[in-house]
Amino acid sequence: MAGKQNPELRRRELCDAAIVLLAREGIKGVTHLRVDRKAGVPDGTASFYFRTSSALVRAVANRIADLDLADLTAAIRATKCGAGPSPAAGLARLVIQSGTGARLVRSKARYELVMPASRDAGLAAAFSHNQQQFFELHRDVVLSLCPAGTDPVLIDEKSYALLTFISGLMLALARGDRTITSAGQLETIITSIVASVPAVSHREGVSAVDR
Amino acid sequence: MAGKQNPELRRRELCDAAIVLLAREGIKGVTHLRVDRKAGVPDGTASFYFRTSSALVRAVANRIADLDLADLTAAIRATKCGAGPSPAAGLARLVIQSGTGARLVRSKARYELVMPASRDAGLAAAFSHNQQQFFELHRDVVLSLCPAGTDPVLIDEKSYALLTFISGLMLALARGDRTITSAGQLETIITSIVASVPAVSHREGVSAVDR
Repeated sequence: MAGKQNPELRRRELCDAAIVLLAREGIKGVTHLRVDRKAGVPDGTASFYFRTSSALVRAVANRIADLDLADLTAAIRATKCGAGPSPAAGLARLVIQSGTGARLVRSKARYELVMPASRDAGLAAAFSHNQQQFFELHRDVVLSLCPAGTDPVLIDEKSYALLTFISGLMLALARGDRTITSAGQLETIITSIVASVPAVSHREGVSAVDR
Repeated sequence: MAGKQNPELRRRELCDAAIVLLAREGIKGVTHLRVDRKAGVPDGTASFYFRTSSALVRAVANRIADLDLADLTAAIRATKCGAGPSPAAGLARLVIQSGTGARLVRSKARYELVMPASRDAGLAAAFSHNQQQFFELHRDVVLSLCPAGTDPVLIDEKSYALLTFISGLMLALARGDRTITSAGQLETIITSIVASVPAVSHREGVSAVDR
């Protein structure tokens, strides 16, 4: 029965159902049967596509990472040709959106998996796979805010600081903190973090690139 | 038997054992019996002091929050009178230490509880209780880096940005990221985040104080 449908589509449906369970109850809420019921598919479907719970949770992590990357790419690069909001404005808007609606559900699900991933190499791989691209997208934001010719070491340092700040903010939003709710306010803070004084900040630089 | 010992001391011992289990296996690893065995106390001791698992986990969260606050206070305020490292250097050193040894264990345990706390008001209270003091300690670091007379709204905004960056970095360290391992390098980044251009960053300001 499960074979009747496009398998790739069915896998995504199952992962999307698992994301909702994960956000609501944590990793203990994600079992094959509960995913079947949540997705409204016959019992046994999730087990058919993902043999073990570990395979199921890894597939969910991959789905989250792919959706996050697609959103971030669209927010930052869509308007590179000049029209529309700046990369910083695009990033700010996306981050604020991660605090509401379906994006909040996905964001909660992601942070449920961060610490389990530190104990499961397969799960960690799902997230680290896109990590370099996330860094480069934040680097695009930094480049758009810095004068041409800024030292690349400094650009990397600012990009790392921005990525780390955004990660802290998304965690805060995921756990319910609502200190920042305006994209305009966040854009100001992003600009401020990036627009730091080069003479002070340039001493050692960020060494590792593949994080 | 459990009554023979100083109850406050015994509670702390049990919480410290639970922190190790939490860091290693997540919240599912923390049961009364496993805490007893880990602490090397008679079976039933943890149940005697904490009747439910919920009470046990909340006590652990309180213990983590208290230890974190004590460490941060010592790192930032100990040398306020002039001698020793600056508040920024103290903060940088403490954060880097959170990536190794016993501090890493506590840091992992803390981040295991962040998302569960978003589903459990009692657990959330353990963390939010100290939140204002954490903010004020970061504000001390910002104040030490800004010229006297800097607009308080801007100081709050910088403090929030710094607190959020540090939270993102501690999460990164807890999950095994080792991009930043030098306190000197981190101090440079902290200084850089705080030393941003006022004219750009001052537009709306951080509104909520009790976060």
